[in-house]
Amino acid sequence: MSITNEKLVPGALPASLQLTQDGQLKHFLDIEGLPKSLLTQILDRAEQFVTLPSNTQKKFPLLRGRTVMNLFFENSTRTRITFELAAQRLSADIVNLDIRNSSASKGESLLDTIRNLEAMNCDMFVVRHHHSSAPHFIARHCAPHISVLNAGDGYHAHPTQAMLDMLTIRQHKQSFEGLVVAINGDIRHSRVARSQIHALNTLGVKEVRVIAPGTLMPVGIEEMGVKVFTSMDEGLKDVDVVVMLRLQKERMRGAMLPSEKEYFSMYGLTEKRLKLAKPDAIVMHPGPVNRGVEIDSSVADGPQSVIMQQVTNGIAVRMAVMSMVMGTRAMEQQING
Amino acid sequence: MSITNEKLVPGALPASLQLTQDGQLKHFLDIEGLPKSLLTQILDRAEQFVTLPSNTQKKFPLLRGRTVMNLFFENSTRTRITFELAAQRLSADIVNLDIRNSSASKGESLLDTIRNLEAMNCDMFVVRHHHSSAPHFIARHCAPHISVLNAGDGYHAHPTQAMLDMLTIRQHKQSFEGLVVAINGDIRHSRVARSQIHALNTLGVKEVRVIAPGTLMPVGIEEMGVKVFTSMDEGLKDVDVVVMLRLQKERMRGAMLPSEKEYFSMYGLTEKRLKLAKPDAIVMHPGPVNRGVEIDSSVADGPQSVIMQQVTNGIAVRMAVMSMVMGTRAMEQQING
Amino acid sequence: MSITNEKLVPGALPASLQLTQDGQLKHFLDIEGLPKSLLTQILDRAEQFVTLPSNTQKKFPLLRGRTVMNLFFENSTRTRITFELAAQRLSADIVNLDIRNSSASKGESLLDTIRNLEAMNCDMFVVRHHHSSAPHFIARHCAPHISVLNAGDGYHAHPTQAMLDMLTIRQHKQSFEGLVVAINGDIRHSRVARSQIHALNTLGVKEVRVIAPGTLMPVGIEEMGVKVFTSMDEGLKDVDVVVMLRLQKERMRGAMLPSEKEYFSMYGLTEKRLKLAKPDAIVMHPGPVNRGVEIDSSVADGPQSVIMQQVTNGIAVRMAVMSMVMGTRAMEQQING
Repeated sequence: MSITNEKLVPGALPASLQLTQDGQLKHFLDIEGLPKSLLTQILDRAEQFVTLPSNTQKKFPLLRGRTVMNLFFENSTRTRITFELAAQRLSADIVNLDIRNSSASKGESLLDTIRNLEAMNCDMFVVRHHHSSAPHFIARHCAPHISVLNAGDGYHAHPTQAMLDMLTIRQHKQSFEGLVVAINGDIRHSRVARSQIHALNTLGVKEVRVIAPGTLMPVGIEEMGVKVFTSMDEGLKDVDVVVMLRLQKERMRGAMLPSEKEYFSMYGLTEKRLKLAKPDAIVMHPGPVNRGVEIDSSVADGPQSVIMQQVTNGIAVRMAVMSMVMGTRAMEQQING
Repeated sequence: MSITNEKLVPGALPASLQLTQDGQLKHFLDIEGLPKSLLTQILDRAEQFVTLPSNTQKKFPLLRGRTVMNLFFENSTRTRITFELAAQRLSADIVNLDIRNSSASKGESLLDTIRNLEAMNCDMFVVRHHHSSAPHFIARHCAPHISVLNAGDGYHAHPTQAMLDMLTIRQHKQSFEGLVVAINGDIRHSRVARSQIHALNTLGVKEVRVIAPGTLMPVGIEEMGVKVFTSMDEGLKDVDVVVMLRLQKERMRGAMLPSEKEYFSMYGLTEKRLKLAKPDAIVMHPGPVNRGVEIDSSVADGPQSVIMQQVTNGIAVRMAVMSMVMGTRAMEQQING
Repeated sequence: MSITNEKLVPGALPASLQLTQDGQLKHFLDIEGLPKSLLTQILDRAEQFVTLPSNTQKKFPLLRGRTVMNLFFENSTRTRITFELAAQRLSADIVNLDIRNSSASKGESLLDTIRNLEAMNCDMFVVRHHHSSAPHFIARHCAPHISVLNAGDGYHAHPTQAMLDMLTIRQHKQSFEGLVVAINGDIRHSRVARSQIHALNTLGVKEVRVIAPGTLMPVGIEEMGVKVFTSMDEGLKDVDVVVMLRLQKERMRGAMLPSEKEYFSMYGLTEKRLKLAKPDAIVMHPGPVNRGVEIDSSVADGPQSVIMQQVTNGIAVRMAVMSMVMGTRAMEQQING
């Protein structure tokens, strides 16, 4: 994989930043640049954490005595909760920092905020930020004892979301080999799509397709290793996996799109359209779903939908990544004394 | 007890919804329809959890590995805290969801929000909602592994508040038999009063009285099994328990009521009026108290007031209900494998 | 030490309020009036809790089963987090009460709020309040089983901040004897400065200096046992410790101060000015830093700055105080049965 999104997001050098010298995960910022073996390791670890609802015991002592800080510069209650639950189930202490009410808004620089928080002997920052690469910036500048997890940055990346999608695909299709996956919707503004494309290509699917109207398709997307479709009917043909993206309704107002109704008629996923995919195709969505805008209710709730399974897998994947980066740190401490 | 409040809140079918087939508590939504034996079981369990301030050990491992979610669609810091403390002392993990800042406000349906949260492997939803029966709706539609506790819904019910009141009465009066209880104030808008009336009648008191000006008395309230009084002096005569309700000051503006001063002169509980009750009558209030509006300070802080004991009992009752519904679930899991 | 700040903050009687009859710490409201032996005990205890970032184990079971409530009537995310982390690492349960959204704002009196919270079987209130002596008021009126910690009140006191500063000084200078310490900036509005002055004098430094323009110097400050300077160059001469205070930019608008630039030229700490102090002088700041207003970036990040060490010590000092007041209570319970 020599294809990168450097042109889209300048300054990202994820691989060297995320891994220790011997290839262990230290930060989790980006799918791009991570080797297949590491992605597979995350999936294997997460599979162990997938908790059945009927299973009482959800607590593991792996992060006992560790402190996780949720730094959400951009509001997202749902994503914050999934990291909070993951940390709790690993027995970590967790602090939610409402960064919009803190010193950051009193004119303190991001770097000063980070310096202060790391001095409180935290172990992990979970960062959500409206600016692309903010988590990378923090990872580059924070103390060596901190691990940074990207919980979504600008239009750039959302790597835990991509990995929970991969876990869901693997649970249904066993192997990535030979799969054709179509990602549909607002590719242009989607950090989820970017991370999914990197993950799918690294894990070795046969083909990744992106389907969107021209106004929602980023220039140069082909360089990421995808086939571009502007027709839903062509793009869905014989795919194994259909990934729908949430359409931000704000786009409507920006003259990028016609009405919701017209969008749905051209790009909404209906039962009829889904028949173009393979009979055993699964339907995915990162949530929250806009019923009747990008997806029909009957499909979202239908037998091919795995949307709720994605949510469940989200906790497991976050537990996997958290326990891996903390394991790496524990190892470093043993070596460095 | 064949009397129901179906006319007041259509669509409530609490008993079958709240109990398993063999009569164990699964959800706690409503006092209405629950048998006396179950209410007594809650009180007995709660009594075990009543913690003296001097008692160091407040932690029980009964909910270890369980996740409780506080879903407060209506703001109530104090009630939220009592459930949070109850969950912590049972060793549960707890997540507070500020639902007004979450996807629910982005147009996602309540059902989609619930589906997502239950997929995160939660065990219990504590629901506060401005719409009557919202917790019932959630209980009806959520996954079978979730228990729902009603933390107050519209004008309908507030069952844990009613049970902490019952516990307080039992601690002072030993038995419910033969008691005369007067509930005073804004009966019309009070979910607390509705739940209290059901609880008192189920537990077998001799007489429940409601005292309010006509504008604050709901039509048809007699059908719930109460005696109606519009005169405070008549209603308080020889009662064992005086329950005062908080007067929402907003009512003043709605032309439902004269001035605060006039209200107090007619319906405020003073030392003089309290003398009409039995000499050992106790005075209760769900809080927060409007001193000088519905109750005189000297009474609220006086020797017959048990208001602070109600607060302490509130934690114990919530611990009791939480541990009971989780016990029911554990049993079901054993049976169903 | 017969010097008090009674004239500045009337009504404070800290010593008798904070200590049990046999001199153990019960509340931590104020440095004023506490004996040197007790301050030293806090520092010794805190030193045991200072956690190196590479140290995995940060949990101590000392407050297991205890409930700490953060009552922040004035917003301060950073300070709240340090108390939250301290409580978590002592294994306490912690509840954050957003007091501005609670009943307090519905017209309930402070006393009623406190009565309600203490009835929930809490063990400790951490109080931040915009009114001076609010934590003292709470300590005076709350139930005997509660300990109150002052997390900053009005312009009055910020005792845990002062103690973390003392810990940092002791770590670098070993002993307080013979030290000359200069506190610089907005002395007038600084609760931090007041608490520092009491602590430094009690611990027996040689000299405490305060440096500020006349408009930011409180009348009668000499009575607290300090030397007053209006010239930075004179005040910094040969000091061992330079404490910078945060300048609230609001002061600029109030005609108390000229422009930021002019303030910096007269009272900002630059590398050049720092040379007036002893060569091994340390530079402190309670944070958040206004770079280029009260301190130059090169000094804040320079080799003599111990600002980040102060943050780390802040957790340790709060753990020390929390475990001490709870130890006192446990002892009382043993004695009183």
